Amino acid sequence: MAAAVSPLAPKGGFPDLAPIAGVRLATIAAGVKYRDRRDVLLAHITAGSAVAGVFTKSSTRSAPVLDCQAKLAAGALQGDFALLVNSGNSNAFTGSRGSDSVAAICSAVAKQLDLPQGNVFTASTGVIGEPLPHEKITAKIADLGAALGTASLLDGAEAIMTTDTYAKGAGATVEIGGKTVRIAGIAKGSGMIAPDMATMLVYLFTDAKISSEDLQSLIAQENQTSFNAITVDSDTSTSDSLMAFATGASGVAVAGNAEFTRALRKVMLDLAHQVVRDGEGATKFVEISVRGAVNAEDARKVALSVANSPLVKTAIAGEDANWGRVVMAVGKSGAQADRDRLTIRFGDILVAENGWVAPSYTEETGAAYMKGDEILIDIDLGLGDVADRVWTCDLTHGYITINADYRS
Amino acid sequence: MAAAVSPLAPKGGFPDLAPIAGVRLATIAAGVKYRDRRDVLLAHITAGSAVAGVFTKSSTRSAPVLDCQAKLAAGALQGDFALLVNSGNSNAFTGSRGSDSVAAICSAVAKQLDLPQGNVFTASTGVIGEPLPHEKITAKIADLGAALGTASLLDGAEAIMTTDTYAKGAGATVEIGGKTVRIAGIAKGSGMIAPDMATMLVYLFTDAKISSEDLQSLIAQENQTSFNAITVDSDTSTSDSLMAFATGASGVAVAGNAEFTRALRKVMLDLAHQVVRDGEGATKFVEISVRGAVNAEDARKVALSVANSPLVKTAIAGEDANWGRVVMAVGKSGAQADRDRLTIRFGDILVAENGWVAPSYTEETGAAYMKGDEILIDIDLGLGDVADRVWTCDLTHGYITINADYRS
Repeated sequence: MAAAVSPLAPKGGFPDLAPIAGVRLATIAAGVKYRDRRDVLLAHITAGSAVAGVFTKSSTRSAPVLDCQAKLAAGALQGDFALLVNSGNSNAFTGSRGSDSVAAICSAVAKQLDLPQGNVFTASTGVIGEPLPHEKITAKIADLGAALGTASLLDGAEAIMTTDTYAKGAGATVEIGGKTVRIAGIAKGSGMIAPDMATMLVYLFTDAKISSEDLQSLIAQENQTSFNAITVDSDTSTSDSLMAFATGASGVAVAGNAEFTRALRKVMLDLAHQVVRDGEGATKFVEISVRGAVNAEDARKVALSVANSPLVKTAIAGEDANWGRVVMAVGKSGAQADRDRLTIRFGDILVAENGWVAPSYTEETGAAYMKGDEILIDIDLGLGDVADRVWTCDLTHGYITINADYRS
Repeated sequence: MAAAVSPLAPKGGFPDLAPIAGVRLATIAAGVKYRDRRDVLLAHITAGSAVAGVFTKSSTRSAPVLDCQAKLAAGALQGDFALLVNSGNSNAFTGSRGSDSVAAICSAVAKQLDLPQGNVFTASTGVIGEPLPHEKITAKIADLGAALGTASLLDGAEAIMTTDTYAKGAGATVEIGGKTVRIAGIAKGSGMIAPDMATMLVYLFTDAKISSEDLQSLIAQENQTSFNAITVDSDTSTSDSLMAFATGASGVAVAGNAEFTRALRKVMLDLAHQVVRDGEGATKFVEISVRGAVNAEDARKVALSVANSPLVKTAIAGEDANWGRVVMAVGKSGAQADRDRLTIRFGDILVAENGWVAPSYTEETGAAYMKGDEILIDIDLGLGDVADRVWTCDLTHGYITINADYRS
């Protein structure tokens, strides 16, 4: 069941990403579940690097997520690090065997690379509830160690794919004080997100010089408006992880540097949008923009209520400019809203205002706009001055086929 | 596009409901939108009756809902009442014209029946954003008034249908102190629920003797575990309304009577289940039962998180005993949960416990169970002693077809 590449995939394919100084990658086919493809990524990040991470808030999160969180909390914040990611099995809901598998892998990697075990991070993505056959992975650690430096970021992005229809990468270059700082990231995920289908994993690498504490603040902040602002089906994985490693190899300190922050934001948003563009069954990429809210919480509530509404998402799939469903979703959001102050635009087209359809609006204009594959729904609540944006995709027969017919 | 009757419709068809003493009904074809069918229901409820209502919490609720709420708040609590419901147009998001239409209808009904206008309640269901052609309705008020008493509860249930595939009714009889008390209800709705598709309207009639205050407490309480415990697609209409009228004609006082409460609960739950059974595209009727929660809020959160999860609902549609998706939905609910204390059953089949799949569980047993058209997902959080239940249906290609292809 090799799926065709999503019609919303970036036109240019995987970007041309130069390696990040201080980061060496290796990939291998360990046969965790898939055959005839590489399914394990090992990364070594050089001594003196910084590390940070944000993870799923699920109360049933996977063993690798719990392990990464414990290590970051225990202060594994400066040193050389290793990251091992496998696809094919998520090691989630596997009872006490789950943490045994994580420990076995971390121990093998630590020995191979002569690192403290607390500096080794892992992630697993794929089917849940089946014990991870970690022996298949530990048997390959020596080969992976020997191969470090031979894999590209594209190789890494491919090794961690599950139901993704294309490999996801993004990068940026910033000139600061005459020196060049690089950022590169890879991601996987094609739903938001089910444990056995489409966990989201994101790895960011940079040669910038920054402390782990500052890096943590930065990714936590930027995560809010990128990966926390996308939704495919309102479902949340037990394994979602984002980690960032900064090697400092550029010699450029970036804490508080606005240009670096902007570049990081661009990379994170690019990857987040790529995840939505690979949403299961997606045929439209949709931005929900909310303005005029009284506070940030309300703005986000309205945006997510519209983005997650099955009736809004099916209307978009049907190319139906159904603004009534948008009104409904605003109304049910729980945010402060006043029907008669609400303004709704589809793209630049004024659709509804003052509690009713706009006099200038015609069904023909709306219908023509909905035929595009990038849709903007712009909602002005007319009550305050707080704005927010989230991104989603439409809900199609393809989604049902992928998720209802998966095992049949 | 006359839809076939839902495969989950009650086998016996519409129940045999005797009229409620003190309640007279009339229906008529006013041509609001549909042709060749009755689309307006008028009810007159005798002098000395009590009234109560619960309504959508949407902040973009329709003009008739706002009007009903205002009248109840102003104390229209004892007297004779009228209820007028039209299908074909929801009079929602119609600006100031919306309340003008409501006033015009209420005024005509009040004159015809010689009632204070404050005692006339209305509801509208159907397409939104189009002005309600209320002249078509007011032109029929004299005919409706003359016809009072000629329509059955089935006639009433049929007149208020929109995308419903069958008319919904339920009734109960209670013997109290040697006398008989009757309850009868009608409902419409086949989604949970979009403003232009499937608003939920529920009308309960009884000849019990009860004050409006007590009736209000009773329906507000029972609504929590019936209509507030069902979800088809997590969407909420701008028009959802439930009203109850008690004529007192039986002469039996029922305040605090446990048998009456049980009978009312049964009628409300029956109607609520009928709405789910008519869920758009539904092929499975699903109960989500949660036990072992630390408090009621958590129990409801977990139940709704599972019931609204597109991945759980598509798995059920695919007859896939995908307990991993249930774990995921519990985890994302925000309720207190501990992966290793979670027990999941499908029907009587123990599926997962102690953080992993149960040793006794086999895929074959799970797959066989999922072939039924009534599915129970039983979740024990293992943390406390609070339980809750909600009901939903599966998410199928039929839902997408109805909602994405609606205007195409």
